[in-house]
Amino acid sequence: MAHVIDERLANLGVILPAAPAPAANYLPYILSGNQLLIAGQAAVVDGKHLFVGRLGAEVSVADGRQAAQRAAINVLAQVKAACFGDWNKLTRCLRICGYLNATPAFAEHPQVLDGASDFLVAALGDAGKHVRTVLGASSLRSSTAVVIDAVFEVRIDVSNCF
Amino acid sequence: MAHVIDERLANLGVILPAAPAPAANYLPYILSGNQLLIAGQAAVVDGKHLFVGRLGAEVSVADGRQAAQRAAINVLAQVKAACFGDWNKLTRCLRICGYLNATPAFAEHPQVLDGASDFLVAALGDAGKHVRTVLGASSLRSSTAVVIDAVFEVRIDVSNCF
Amino acid sequence: MAHVIDERLANLGVILPAAPAPAANYLPYILSGNQLLIAGQAAVVDGKHLFVGRLGAEVSVADGRQAAQRAAINVLAQVKAACFGDWNKLTRCLRICGYLNATPAFAEHPQVLDGASDFLVAALGDAGKHVRTVLGASSLRSSTAVVIDAVFEVRIDVSNCF
Repeated sequence: MAHVIDERLANLGVILPAAPAPAANYLPYILSGNQLLIAGQAAVVDGKHLFVGRLGAEVSVADGRQAAQRAAINVLAQVKAACFGDWNKLTRCLRICGYLNATPAFAEHPQVLDGASDFLVAALGDAGKHVRTVLGASSLRSSTAVVIDAVFEVRIDVSNCF
Repeated sequence: MAHVIDERLANLGVILPAAPAPAANYLPYILSGNQLLIAGQAAVVDGKHLFVGRLGAEVSVADGRQAAQRAAINVLAQVKAACFGDWNKLTRCLRICGYLNATPAFAEHPQVLDGASDFLVAALGDAGKHVRTVLGASSLRSSTAVVIDAVFEVRIDVSNCF
Repeated sequence: MAHVIDERLANLGVILPAAPAPAANYLPYILSGNQLLIAGQAAVVDGKHLFVGRLGAEVSVADGRQAAQRAAINVLAQVKAACFGDWNKLTRCLRICGYLNATPAFAEHPQVLDGASDFLVAALGDAGKHVRTVLGASSLRSSTAVVIDAVFEVRIDVSNCF
């Protein structure tokens, strides 16, 4: 029987991609105690950045929301990989931080990051509820529009196993 | 008898407000093990941003310090709510991160964030001493001047209780 | 007999400085459970910022890489101080976050932060592998080029001992 998270993803029409490879010399995720730390993820599909440019200029709020959702999908792909595909190992999302490539005049950060938060709650239910911070970055790697990193809580202590 | 933290707040002339509601689809705080994570807080009073604009332009260092203090007051209001009003549940502040809406030429970030750090030490004593990072953001939600998030340590393990 | 980390540092030609004092009212590091949190470090030597200005303007990618490495050296100096000089207390690096003083057009963030990541892996071996996030800041304290903060894992529970 499919796990409820897989059912929700299917209902959302979301197919989790293979977890994206890191952009440089770092790990995509790391486990410490029952905390799972996820490296910053962008809206990258098949190695290509989907939304390039700044909120408040080249990228609209609607596109920024989509970028935030795609970045969150990649975050969740990393979580699934860290759990060896077993959602039962996941307790909940604790925190996301959203970095928006944004102009000085841009002010609608919450609306953009809700693209990620709404997706996480839709996919994980109550376990997707999290604290968050969002801020404008003066620039981001490859001029991508949105980067999101995250901390999740996992059920089992896997310290020193990674 | 009043708790020493309440006495210190009274001496500082600070009345903790009701914990501000989140600006969008996220939690104001979350507990995991003995870590209490606080979502990014701004200098908001009764739903109104007190300091709007950028350090280095519309907002002075002195006003930035006040904004940082007000944001830290809201952080502490969230901590109190998370502890159900019982300061004995709080061990100490571990970390704050300060995001300053700032121009490229601005360079006095530590002076601004000291508005938050000085307040936390004044209110919590040694338990208010923390590590921190401060950086200039290209923009912040509602063009607010300062956002601060934080991690506190609490005395009791409340995993999976939230 | 020298610890392997000291040997690797010697082979890299790196002499860890005394841990830099904080720039304002905060702690350079704090221990909570088996997590060691390091405050934001810049490429400061003897109180002087080595690289001042923005990536994409006054500071080249090559200089940015050096700034990131120097900041990471200062991070490691704090770790050594927190461990009372005993590397056996250190388990591994969990996470770094890199803040680059950068123009809106700058896009080579990973190349810059690799200056820190490459150093940590060279110095700590597998224990230096970490997750990370890197973003452009609109400005940084003293107009320094790079700030890095970090979370390490330590072997012993030192809660409430700090």
